[in-house]
Amino acid sequence: MLSIEKYQEEFLSFLEDYNTVKEPHGLYKPIEYILGLGGKRLRPVLTLMTTDIFGGSYKDAFHAALGVEVFHNFTLVHDDIMDDAPLRRGKATVHEKWDINTGILSGDAMLIMAYQLFEHYPPEIFKALTKLFSRTAIEVCEGQQYDVDFETRNDVTIPEYLKMIEYKTSVLVAAAMKMGAIIAGASIEDQNNIYEFGRNLGVAFQLQDDYLDAFGNPETFGKQVGGDIIENKKTYLYLKALQFASENEKERLIHLFNTVTDKTDEKVFVVKELFKATGASESTKQAVQDYTNKAFSVLETLNISDDRKQLLKVFGNSLMNRNV
Amino acid sequence: MLSIEKYQEEFLSFLEDYNTVKEPHGLYKPIEYILGLGGKRLRPVLTLMTTDIFGGSYKDAFHAALGVEVFHNFTLVHDDIMDDAPLRRGKATVHEKWDINTGILSGDAMLIMAYQLFEHYPPEIFKALTKLFSRTAIEVCEGQQYDVDFETRNDVTIPEYLKMIEYKTSVLVAAAMKMGAIIAGASIEDQNNIYEFGRNLGVAFQLQDDYLDAFGNPETFGKQVGGDIIENKKTYLYLKALQFASENEKERLIHLFNTVTDKTDEKVFVVKELFKATGASESTKQAVQDYTNKAFSVLETLNISDDRKQLLKVFGNSLMNRNV
Repeated sequence: MLSIEKYQEEFLSFLEDYNTVKEPHGLYKPIEYILGLGGKRLRPVLTLMTTDIFGGSYKDAFHAALGVEVFHNFTLVHDDIMDDAPLRRGKATVHEKWDINTGILSGDAMLIMAYQLFEHYPPEIFKALTKLFSRTAIEVCEGQQYDVDFETRNDVTIPEYLKMIEYKTSVLVAAAMKMGAIIAGASIEDQNNIYEFGRNLGVAFQLQDDYLDAFGNPETFGKQVGGDIIENKKTYLYLKALQFASENEKERLIHLFNTVTDKTDEKVFVVKELFKATGASESTKQAVQDYTNKAFSVLETLNISDDRKQLLKVFGNSLMNRNV
Repeated sequence: MLSIEKYQEEFLSFLEDYNTVKEPHGLYKPIEYILGLGGKRLRPVLTLMTTDIFGGSYKDAFHAALGVEVFHNFTLVHDDIMDDAPLRRGKATVHEKWDINTGILSGDAMLIMAYQLFEHYPPEIFKALTKLFSRTAIEVCEGQQYDVDFETRNDVTIPEYLKMIEYKTSVLVAAAMKMGAIIAGASIEDQNNIYEFGRNLGVAFQLQDDYLDAFGNPETFGKQVGGDIIENKKTYLYLKALQFASENEKERLIHLFNTVTDKTDEKVFVVKELFKATGASESTKQAVQDYTNKAFSVLETLNISDDRKQLLKVFGNSLMNRNV
């Protein structure tokens, strides 16, 4: 087993060898650009680490790990077009630096390139990885669609919201880990359990993201605190607040989330007070804890040594403490 | 062996069972819509037919055939966005009927769904089909990029143009046929030869399309005759004309293809005269014949009975005579 930093380093060196510009440049330059923009490379690191955890060798997992990372970056390119986002990791997005058509076509090529990376594996493994990958990819698309749908709906339920964040973010984390287990030749049971670990941890992480967006430390959170509130995003905090609110609070909340104001500081303050008063903030913190606990309890069922379970727990904790 | 019409019918009935709308509707409705728009279903029919030709059963090829058709429709959805096209088969394009974001996301889902259709096959076949599919899909993207690049280039060579149309259209026809051979358990040699047949026939068909766009019968061609000339498209006819032209003719052609005019009838007439005078029209007709002959000569090498070779020849001829 290596340290997280070492897995990152190893992955980056593999990525560098792969990430060369082919002809036609108009198609491949944007791909080289987005893949080189950085990020924590969390998903591919999870694939490498999980392969080692189940007794394989992380070097065998490079291609699958890169497939996951290329896919993740494909979603960023197309999502940024859909969200009309000018910046990604502090740099111009692909459709800003080039144009929308380039973003569409280079993104399409990336999705195909992700599939091609699995060709490295023999037929049985190839099929297991590709099937898992396709199911995950289609769920990510569905999650994105639900997210779009929810923007214009006022009756989103908590289970619907949980399904959306599960599809939009958790399943790829879960699949990244399961791929590692598949490559290591772990049992189907272990494969499914590590998937559940990743899925629950992913949901916990996303719910925590919702929480921190309102209540996080501006110095360390990385994004603008209160951003979701300013954008009227119906996060877990908001849905829980609606659920717990009195009629009067409910009316105020709905009104606040249907107006755009210049007085953002005031709005953020008022909404946060409502999140606290209704008990939504406490309830969200509790949900984060519940999903984290669920993830950790799945660990117990894995057929691996206790020190490796401990490693996954340390990783999970450092992820939830945002140290990774 | 069935007739082309019967293969079409059988394919359509398989498609109908598959083409149901799942949740979320915002993602799957546009997919149902584009898959239901019609068309000749030429590529999937080729997959079914080729399976029979090599001694398999076309029913085993339904999933692969549909994968090819879903992919083809994915390219239509994304290409129509890039070309800003309002109509497809006389109906509103997906991004017109919904919006661009829907076109992007539903298209992405279709690309993934195409891959999922190959999961029907056992691991060895699955890997062979998926590898071929990915290589083909990436070439289609490259072909699309070359096509975009050529719009703003004045130094496109004939070999570059041939590579572009090969990637943009022929490789998918070729792959559709090779998939049928793979499913039937044909030898690698036969698989590669039927691919060559499809590739050459595809190039012949596309070159003929360039020719007919200028010299076709307005009653039967289906598209506006002279459309490429009006849009200043650098087709094979244009590139050949430039190659054969005198300095004076060359200047006139370049000028004509760098101007937009209201007098389209006059422009089409003048350009067609130049195509004839330079010998470009004859040369294009010859190239169509050469590629068709190349396709038919590959047929001789196939390890199938003479009457089946004859069937492929009849199909090729009816395709080139636009009777399919």
